[in-house]
Amino acid sequence: MEFNRRIRKESLKNKIMSAREASNFIVDGMTVATSGFTPSGYPKKVPIEIAKRAESGEKIKISLITGASVGDELDGELSRSGVIERRYPYQTQKDMRDNINNGDTFYADHHLSHVPQHIDYGYYGQIDVAIIEALCITEDGGIVPTTSVGISPQAIKNADKIIIEINTAQPLALEGVHDIYMTEKPPLRKHIPIYKSDDRIGKTYIDCDESKIVAIVESDTPDDVRPLGEIDENSKKISNFIIDFLGEEVEKGRLPKNLLPLQSGVGSVANAVLGGLIDSDFTDLTCYTEVIQDSMFDLIDAGKVKFASGTSFTPSEEGLKRLFDNTEHYAKHCILRPMEISNNPEIIRRLGIIAMNTAIEIDIYGNVNSTNIMGTRMMNGIGGSGDFTRNGYLTIFTTVSTAKNGDISSIVPMVSHVDHTEHDVHVVVTEQGIADLRGLAPKERSRKTIENCAHPDYKELLLDYVDRAEEGKYKHTPHIIDEALSFHERFIGTGSMKKEKKGLLKRVL
Amino acid sequence: MEFNRRIRKESLKNKIMSAREASNFIVDGMTVATSGFTPSGYPKKVPIEIAKRAESGEKIKISLITGASVGDELDGELSRSGVIERRYPYQTQKDMRDNINNGDTFYADHHLSHVPQHIDYGYYGQIDVAIIEALCITEDGGIVPTTSVGISPQAIKNADKIIIEINTAQPLALEGVHDIYMTEKPPLRKHIPIYKSDDRIGKTYIDCDESKIVAIVESDTPDDVRPLGEIDENSKKISNFIIDFLGEEVEKGRLPKNLLPLQSGVGSVANAVLGGLIDSDFTDLTCYTEVIQDSMFDLIDAGKVKFASGTSFTPSEEGLKRLFDNTEHYAKHCILRPMEISNNPEIIRRLGIIAMNTAIEIDIYGNVNSTNIMGTRMMNGIGGSGDFTRNGYLTIFTTVSTAKNGDISSIVPMVSHVDHTEHDVHVVVTEQGIADLRGLAPKERSRKTIENCAHPDYKELLLDYVDRAEEGKYKHTPHIIDEALSFHERFIGTGSMKKEKKGLLKRVL
Repeated sequence: MEFNRRIRKESLKNKIMSAREASNFIVDGMTVATSGFTPSGYPKKVPIEIAKRAESGEKIKISLITGASVGDELDGELSRSGVIERRYPYQTQKDMRDNINNGDTFYADHHLSHVPQHIDYGYYGQIDVAIIEALCITEDGGIVPTTSVGISPQAIKNADKIIIEINTAQPLALEGVHDIYMTEKPPLRKHIPIYKSDDRIGKTYIDCDESKIVAIVESDTPDDVRPLGEIDENSKKISNFIIDFLGEEVEKGRLPKNLLPLQSGVGSVANAVLGGLIDSDFTDLTCYTEVIQDSMFDLIDAGKVKFASGTSFTPSEEGLKRLFDNTEHYAKHCILRPMEISNNPEIIRRLGIIAMNTAIEIDIYGNVNSTNIMGTRMMNGIGGSGDFTRNGYLTIFTTVSTAKNGDISSIVPMVSHVDHTEHDVHVVVTEQGIADLRGLAPKERSRKTIENCAHPDYKELLLDYVDRAEEGKYKHTPHIIDEALSFHERFIGTGSMKKEKKGLLKRVL
Repeated sequence: MEFNRRIRKESLKNKIMSAREASNFIVDGMTVATSGFTPSGYPKKVPIEIAKRAESGEKIKISLITGASVGDELDGELSRSGVIERRYPYQTQKDMRDNINNGDTFYADHHLSHVPQHIDYGYYGQIDVAIIEALCITEDGGIVPTTSVGISPQAIKNADKIIIEINTAQPLALEGVHDIYMTEKPPLRKHIPIYKSDDRIGKTYIDCDESKIVAIVESDTPDDVRPLGEIDENSKKISNFIIDFLGEEVEKGRLPKNLLPLQSGVGSVANAVLGGLIDSDFTDLTCYTEVIQDSMFDLIDAGKVKFASGTSFTPSEEGLKRLFDNTEHYAKHCILRPMEISNNPEIIRRLGIIAMNTAIEIDIYGNVNSTNIMGTRMMNGIGGSGDFTRNGYLTIFTTVSTAKNGDISSIVPMVSHVDHTEHDVHVVVTEQGIADLRGLAPKERSRKTIENCAHPDYKELLLDYVDRAEEGKYKHTPHIIDEALSFHERFIGTGSMKKEKKGLLKRVL
């Protein structure tokens, strides 16, 4: 049978057991690290069994470390059954997010490039068990990942015990698409010899100490992929502003004709922004990014993108079918790397990535909030945006200028939480326009951002703030501390950042 | 004569002219890049002549780019004469700072590792003139830097015209201490082959296109070095907390016995913190940092530090004498590199630097303000702290728990400006204690930071804020947006962050 054939190392076959049996290796108080980056390549069978045990009354609380977000069978099931006491470094699942925001789960969102080395350095404590979804196990006992790589190499290296879920729903044709390279810990660390997006420097599987494998479980559950939204008018406008801007940079001699490798964040807007390139004049593009979404397949098929390096395939349901129907074709144009490599500052700075990420809100001085709505409500996490933003050649943040039917302005006097500082943000883009902030002093950035990017409904309010702030004594980063967060206070108090709404807090009037 | 002997390339001797004549190459509207990093190795003669011309009524406004802060002859003279319209990326000179805060000078503080590549990428526009202090010019026309390297390689590479100030007050024995290595721009950039602090990978001089040299000027002005404060009780306490913590990390197997390369920020506190190591049991230490201050000489002489890599010597007056009296001795233990290399993320992450930097204020969730007092008053700039903090193995921030005779708490509910986010800050240290925040969720960080690091006068106020914030709906990063900046509002309104002071803003009571 297919499952058995995928275990090519005979001596491991005595580790085959049911998901329920395997789940018993995970007990209360453990730290568990798993494969998975976005709802791709995460374990799907063992987590459900852990959840069942918890639901039957067994006390199981664990710390869970993954590459990034994962599917419902992991974050969803374990959140609903109250198993996840502590969670790193990123999530998007509704029940997981609720547990974080209601205080039931301790969550810390970390730069994704930091996570693999934090595991290596022991900063998360000992990893008791790794649960890894695999395509197959090689003759040498190497573990071949599926649709993502994420932290799997470091989880396998550092865990006391390893559980493998071999997923026969993932096509074997994916074998060979991965490029597994690991760094040493300081002081022995060497350089990472990647000089182009398509450089292959490692193996197609993860080395694994056979004696640590305690269970091999059969799985046939497909990735819990998410739909990608339609490419709407605002995304098109944002995409066009970026394409025009990149064209001007080429004309000014600051970018090669085929640009530099592109990175684009996760989700519908990022997918749409990247997808807009299909109508541009750019060709021979390369991508060095985290996730390969549907629009990348379009760009590859249109001959726009020559090569894409990422740490996961993150398609919609249709995109997944397209990938699986044409795996060999896309595998020629794609590499999946460990996230220590896909997000590595060394490589990002060397290749000169053009980083495009989305923001929740951006302030007039160029600081970006990517995580906490109104300063307190965790959305997903910083993910890899900081890795690319800090180290990129050009760093661009996009946001639609308003949210909540216009009651929230995405451009505010001071962001309520900072994930990316003024020192890292080059260009801000909304559907209203684009503001190139490079080289500008804060008091120049403010007016340019408001003029070019804020929604007309909020321009007057924002300019009024700037005018009055600039009357203060200190004119470098002019703020009225008492009013810096007044837009947020107004929203919390009245349901709108607009001034004319009823019930406005007195202090604001 | 000495000056003439230092121009070893005969064909360049016809470029010798007075500082006044040379200054005429700089006219209104130009962008000027100079040598200098801290008050070390910056040009001292030509800037004064530019200032004189401006004071005589000539209209001269320039953009000035340096490595970091520079001495009075450059930032001071040009600020007082109103010449600096725009300034990058760091400063500490009083008149310069005043001009920034009163709105006369457009200033943007950038990560120091970004500045050299921003010059290369053209993000500051064309560099019209570079003014470089040199020890000598080699037979091949190479420019040998003096007590700092900073951005000199990129300034020389990119400027249309170059003015050299040969400073005979800088001892020729410094020749050989520099290691000049330059990176290509993407997509041609390669890895930087440094694997240990003392790896030499480049030349001892900066290559220079002879045809761009328009003037060579004689100088004999010593560096305008600044005194270093006494090592006070608070610094000793902070230093001891760090030493004990590092010892524990060694015991836990997370650090080698001789640690990993140390980075320590600029100034008296940083000097004192590093200096504290002299009484520790650590030996065979190495440093990979920006500035080599007095305490480094102590540590070298005590056999504690084997090797220090930096981009400048930044000693006190006594330290400078000591360096010059023993140049050959210290040159055996020190390298000066371009700041693109000293601050490079690739190297910092590879070597696994232990980064120790100072903060103006730190919030309960681990965000750090390094630059803007009360959110608006620019102090110096972010400098290289972000390069080391983001990419270090361990990142530590120190601050004394109060300022202004106790009226300011350095631990606040929300910092009024963010330079380093919660995602980057591992450990917080004050004279009260140390808080290891690694792996903690925000709501754990808050209580630990307050308990361990806040001054007793402010603990109750801070805990009261946390208690009430945690009663809110969203419990991941609990904040009361309306009160998040209330400590600052109180200080601005009453002169103290303490609650019992008179004249308190009504809203706070």
